[in-house]
Amino acid sequence: MAKLNWGMVGGGKGSQIGPAHRLGAQADGNFTLAAGALDHDADAGRAYAQELGVAPDRAYGDWREMLAGETARDDRIDLVTVATPNSTHFEITKSFLEAGFNVLCEKPMTMTVEEGEEIVKIARASGKICAVNYCYSAFPMVREMRHMVQSGQVGKIRLVVANFSHGHHGDAGDADNPRVRWRYDPAMAGVSGQFADCGIHALHMASFIACDEVETLSADFASTIPSRELEDDAMINFRMGGGTVGRLWTSSVAIGRQHGFDIQVFGETGGMRWRSEDPNQVYYTPVGGRTQIMEKGEAGLSDEATRLSRVAIAHPEGFPLAVANIYVDLAAAIRGEPYGALPTAEDGLRSMMAVHQAVASAKADGAWVNAVPDLLK
Amino acid sequence: MAKLNWGMVGGGKGSQIGPAHRLGAQADGNFTLAAGALDHDADAGRAYAQELGVAPDRAYGDWREMLAGETARDDRIDLVTVATPNSTHFEITKSFLEAGFNVLCEKPMTMTVEEGEEIVKIARASGKICAVNYCYSAFPMVREMRHMVQSGQVGKIRLVVANFSHGHHGDAGDADNPRVRWRYDPAMAGVSGQFADCGIHALHMASFIACDEVETLSADFASTIPSRELEDDAMINFRMGGGTVGRLWTSSVAIGRQHGFDIQVFGETGGMRWRSEDPNQVYYTPVGGRTQIMEKGEAGLSDEATRLSRVAIAHPEGFPLAVANIYVDLAAAIRGEPYGALPTAEDGLRSMMAVHQAVASAKADGAWVNAVPDLLK
Amino acid sequence: MAKLNWGMVGGGKGSQIGPAHRLGAQADGNFTLAAGALDHDADAGRAYAQELGVAPDRAYGDWREMLAGETARDDRIDLVTVATPNSTHFEITKSFLEAGFNVLCEKPMTMTVEEGEEIVKIARASGKICAVNYCYSAFPMVREMRHMVQSGQVGKIRLVVANFSHGHHGDAGDADNPRVRWRYDPAMAGVSGQFADCGIHALHMASFIACDEVETLSADFASTIPSRELEDDAMINFRMGGGTVGRLWTSSVAIGRQHGFDIQVFGETGGMRWRSEDPNQVYYTPVGGRTQIMEKGEAGLSDEATRLSRVAIAHPEGFPLAVANIYVDLAAAIRGEPYGALPTAEDGLRSMMAVHQAVASAKADGAWVNAVPDLLK
Amino acid sequence: MAKLNWGMVGGGKGSQIGPAHRLGAQADGNFTLAAGALDHDADAGRAYAQELGVAPDRAYGDWREMLAGETARDDRIDLVTVATPNSTHFEITKSFLEAGFNVLCEKPMTMTVEEGEEIVKIARASGKICAVNYCYSAFPMVREMRHMVQSGQVGKIRLVVANFSHGHHGDAGDADNPRVRWRYDPAMAGVSGQFADCGIHALHMASFIACDEVETLSADFASTIPSRELEDDAMINFRMGGGTVGRLWTSSVAIGRQHGFDIQVFGETGGMRWRSEDPNQVYYTPVGGRTQIMEKGEAGLSDEATRLSRVAIAHPEGFPLAVANIYVDLAAAIRGEPYGALPTAEDGLRSMMAVHQAVASAKADGAWVNAVPDLLK
Repeated sequence: MAKLNWGMVGGGKGSQIGPAHRLGAQADGNFTLAAGALDHDADAGRAYAQELGVAPDRAYGDWREMLAGETARDDRIDLVTVATPNSTHFEITKSFLEAGFNVLCEKPMTMTVEEGEEIVKIARASGKICAVNYCYSAFPMVREMRHMVQSGQVGKIRLVVANFSHGHHGDAGDADNPRVRWRYDPAMAGVSGQFADCGIHALHMASFIACDEVETLSADFASTIPSRELEDDAMINFRMGGGTVGRLWTSSVAIGRQHGFDIQVFGETGGMRWRSEDPNQVYYTPVGGRTQIMEKGEAGLSDEATRLSRVAIAHPEGFPLAVANIYVDLAAAIRGEPYGALPTAEDGLRSMMAVHQAVASAKADGAWVNAVPDLLK
Repeated sequence: MAKLNWGMVGGGKGSQIGPAHRLGAQADGNFTLAAGALDHDADAGRAYAQELGVAPDRAYGDWREMLAGETARDDRIDLVTVATPNSTHFEITKSFLEAGFNVLCEKPMTMTVEEGEEIVKIARASGKICAVNYCYSAFPMVREMRHMVQSGQVGKIRLVVANFSHGHHGDAGDADNPRVRWRYDPAMAGVSGQFADCGIHALHMASFIACDEVETLSADFASTIPSRELEDDAMINFRMGGGTVGRLWTSSVAIGRQHGFDIQVFGETGGMRWRSEDPNQVYYTPVGGRTQIMEKGEAGLSDEATRLSRVAIAHPEGFPLAVANIYVDLAAAIRGEPYGALPTAEDGLRSMMAVHQAVASAKADGAWVNAVPDLLK
Repeated sequence: MAKLNWGMVGGGKGSQIGPAHRLGAQADGNFTLAAGALDHDADAGRAYAQELGVAPDRAYGDWREMLAGETARDDRIDLVTVATPNSTHFEITKSFLEAGFNVLCEKPMTMTVEEGEEIVKIARASGKICAVNYCYSAFPMVREMRHMVQSGQVGKIRLVVANFSHGHHGDAGDADNPRVRWRYDPAMAGVSGQFADCGIHALHMASFIACDEVETLSADFASTIPSRELEDDAMINFRMGGGTVGRLWTSSVAIGRQHGFDIQVFGETGGMRWRSEDPNQVYYTPVGGRTQIMEKGEAGLSDEATRLSRVAIAHPEGFPLAVANIYVDLAAAIRGEPYGALPTAEDGLRSMMAVHQAVASAKADGAWVNAVPDLLK
Repeated sequence: MAKLNWGMVGGGKGSQIGPAHRLGAQADGNFTLAAGALDHDADAGRAYAQELGVAPDRAYGDWREMLAGETARDDRIDLVTVATPNSTHFEITKSFLEAGFNVLCEKPMTMTVEEGEEIVKIARASGKICAVNYCYSAFPMVREMRHMVQSGQVGKIRLVVANFSHGHHGDAGDADNPRVRWRYDPAMAGVSGQFADCGIHALHMASFIACDEVETLSADFASTIPSRELEDDAMINFRMGGGTVGRLWTSSVAIGRQHGFDIQVFGETGGMRWRSEDPNQVYYTPVGGRTQIMEKGEAGLSDEATRLSRVAIAHPEGFPLAVANIYVDLAAAIRGEPYGALPTAEDGLRSMMAVHQAVASAKADGAWVNAVPDLLK
């Protein structure tokens, strides 16, 4: 099977997310890095792209140049990944979609609800793939949890409890560090700090596993380091369409929690929990029974969990391969083959609605607000 | 040192809490069970008391008989433990206090705020001890956490996150079981179900460790099993006097969580977490440093933690010995010796205020309410 | 039910093991400390006994005085606990047994095989109880594992792997500390250091859970701190009567392991593991199935596990209550009631045989040796 | 940087190890799969190679065809991976080395010591790379442990305790399953079963981390499923050149252990432990201090650990990326750049010596034997 051509905007030298995407795209042999506009410094970006094996004529100085160049080619890239600063996601994603490219956009997809609605409309009109990198949903055992919900193994879901709380922004002495500070500055981060950064991953996962959508929410935000304008700690209560109760805590000042992303799902006939730092296990308890440790790769898992794991039971697979699983499904989708539950532009829009409504709720002392974008009603 | 005379109201045959109190009172050789009115069935109570070694004339048929009998004796009991159904705590505690007895009351101390205020006034007037059995606060490593806060080792506390969530009431088919049903029936349980049962332990601990009081709170309650009138799941956001942000989740439908009581405390210079199911360790992380596993019994702990542990490091001490630690301090207090941080009637009153205000907040869609009893302002 | 009279030899002020025995004997209200010879300093022992509530005429200056005094009384003690330095266990246990007292002896019961055989003979002849404090066997979940073996739930046992390895003697700079040094000095500790101290607990547990006896063994000893004459690290391979293979590692230089006592039992149809630092859980895996977390107090456990636990599921019970369980069974045995699997003088003898034969094997480069005392063949 | 050309012998459709190598080679963009003889069925191998993107003229029917074909090309492969059945490793590796190719051979490198010595000689004479896939040594935190030993952070190593014990061959009913049976059949597996399969990984790691070589060993082998001719459980005691004591347990009947590979290293001033199922943490305890949880990606790790990790702290990296790290170093070595501690043909030879000597020792009731190949003395 011929490899697909892949391009990347952003993710230059020193970027955190760039290597994860390159590994994810290449790990399973589906994509070749064929084009790139990797850096806001045009020369640096061109040089780095070539260092990574991109041909000189496809090592672009900026995304507009890349869009023009690729559009003009017969062997144009099959997929572009947008891994630039958040505020630029909208424009770049929009432009590539309109030009007929498939796009994988880093989260958050946009900065506003309106932009999110525009992307959804464009994606729908284009018939192209617009995926958002909610990669946690691509861990095999997360897919297994979703399967267990779908197949009724834990009954109707009563309650979802999700946490995404780390402590890496907990040092007040470090609060002026540019790497940290921008996250809490509305000029750069928009209306929300920690919730927009990590909380939306957890909110997406709650919906993804429970197979339901958040309808209403109530938020309590705090800036526990007082110099911060945006929140560094937030609690979101929510309700899903089917009545499921939700609790979501996210924090960046929880010193001692390293990544701190975990989720618990409680149904009528069983409970499950999963942690992103030990992603190869699910702890499952049937009502009235003992807790069982489910292992990635064990016999009898769903086809979906099996398809997305690569090595035998108890050989751990980690975060980069969850990203790779997104690319596995993108490759399948591009080739017209069956694929799994790719996160979509609609998911990106829902996140943006949740961010803006959580901010509104927090400002209104936790008043309950609607969380469903008009477009998706 | 002569043993102290101890009496018990409630805690008869088949009771859960009775054995824990008897073990707690006797484990360290401080108390002798000298009197008891152990059962609502007078004969059964008298027989069981004698089986436990109580002299026939002090094996009473009910608490009024016991109050009269003990009041009349020169060797009257030094302490009475009240371990009866919740709705009777107030009257019994009040009566013994007024008669000049020291009392240890099971939680909740009362059913209403007004009753709680009355107990506090009587206790203050009597000069007698009125303790409430918030026994989790007596684990050595919980005392160590409090010591670390008091001595500034983790800086000003920004955030406390407490959970007390189990799944033992998660079987809807079991919801009509009388052992379970009463908890969600206002006629028997009062205004609150799960929050009044477990949540107040977690709220007490948040204050106990952070060395601060809850001033305001906002609650979201849910009855995830629809036949329940009272909540089986609740989320409480709160703020303490010094500005600390609080998050408290409590549930009885979290299938797979056995006890599920854990607490995380995040300060300016460090974070700590503790779990009631592994009570001999604290995970402590200094800001910017590695997580350290602190062990009960390790060298260099505070005097308070050392005083309340009995066996060497890595020899686990469990729940019954936390109850015993309450009795260690009660014995010291009765003997006029120095003692530790006994939970008081004021703590019992604060809990009742929190319960009633959380109910009010939940009914008002999470409106923020005051949590400080008038008497304690 | 009247309390039983209990006496104690050793366990004076500052002793580690004394408090564990006092708590163990008193926790469940079965025994009253009625007599004691608690200290090698006669006056200190008499004073401390009275401080603990012993009547002056039963607060003895040494064990011979106590033996004489108690023998002469009508209300003589029902049980004596011997918690003196190891080298004195034999003589004291022997003397009390011969005088018709029930005895609980700390481990090791004797220093030689011959002494062990003598104790067994005396105990058998006397008809009195001679128990040895292998208290780990009294944890509820250890009894549950034994029950699972006995009832065939894991099939014939193929393999037992036991570790008892801590690091508290791992500091070479501390090796001259008298508290540590004696353990590795043959003049005080006898023929073996770490294996005689901790290894025999693990070996007893292997037999206890597998319901079989060690028949042959091969040992590899090492003094990893060269100044030590006796071993601080040992590996024992063994075979049981039914063919079970055994692996036992014990060390006192395993820095970072706090207590480090854990045991894994693998049968034809399932495996189990238990850790003394988390004694309320057993991890059980049926062959071909998922690992299940069994909890002390869960529904459906054996009568034996249920009988020896006191508080509800997920309320941890620790080491002191395992000691207390030994006293629960001692009280029942003394009262002529049914009781569980008390460790016996025969167990004490087997341990001593294992110690001496392991030493012999280690000196012979790991030659396989017989581990069955002649008396028990 | 141009990609290197890579070829693979074995690892066809349905192979376990094939995907791990392909992912490992491609993940970081260093290698392109340029040639392959993937299957013992020539047509199937050719077809699958082309499916994976290999050009038709480099999709070979067997390894001899591939050796001839690649030798004849100017753009011959830069590296060949040998992932065929164990008994063929020697001949294929030898042939490619002699023809001047760099080789990565799966373990075990050979079936006999003599073959191992021959490979070492050829590799030395050729000047080519001959690496063996002891990939556990390439986890970042394993490299960190080695660094801690090398830099003296835990002092002289007194003791190494390694386990590699799973239960996947524990079902006697499954013992005739061909997938399982061959492992215990000397005709197919050679002289050793479980030790040759898993034990040598653990033995390699012991040497790798302790920075020392095994000099002597004593083995106890058991076939706990009686129909097995070769051992399914083994215990190896060993001594290293510097006096370090070693304990190594390996089993395939330890039901409930999934992978069960863990290692503990105890030095004069600290202890460390690592588990292959949670490979991103090391638990480190300085003597006299608290256990610290070290995390992959934390600040202050060695250059070597940092170089071999790809994503941020608490984003787990798993087994496939440890394999990928072997390829990272192979690429660097081929390009003449600095690289890390690649496992070598000498390591493969040492393993084979250990296997044969362990078998000899086990047959001689655990007699201590030399473990150093003559060639390496």
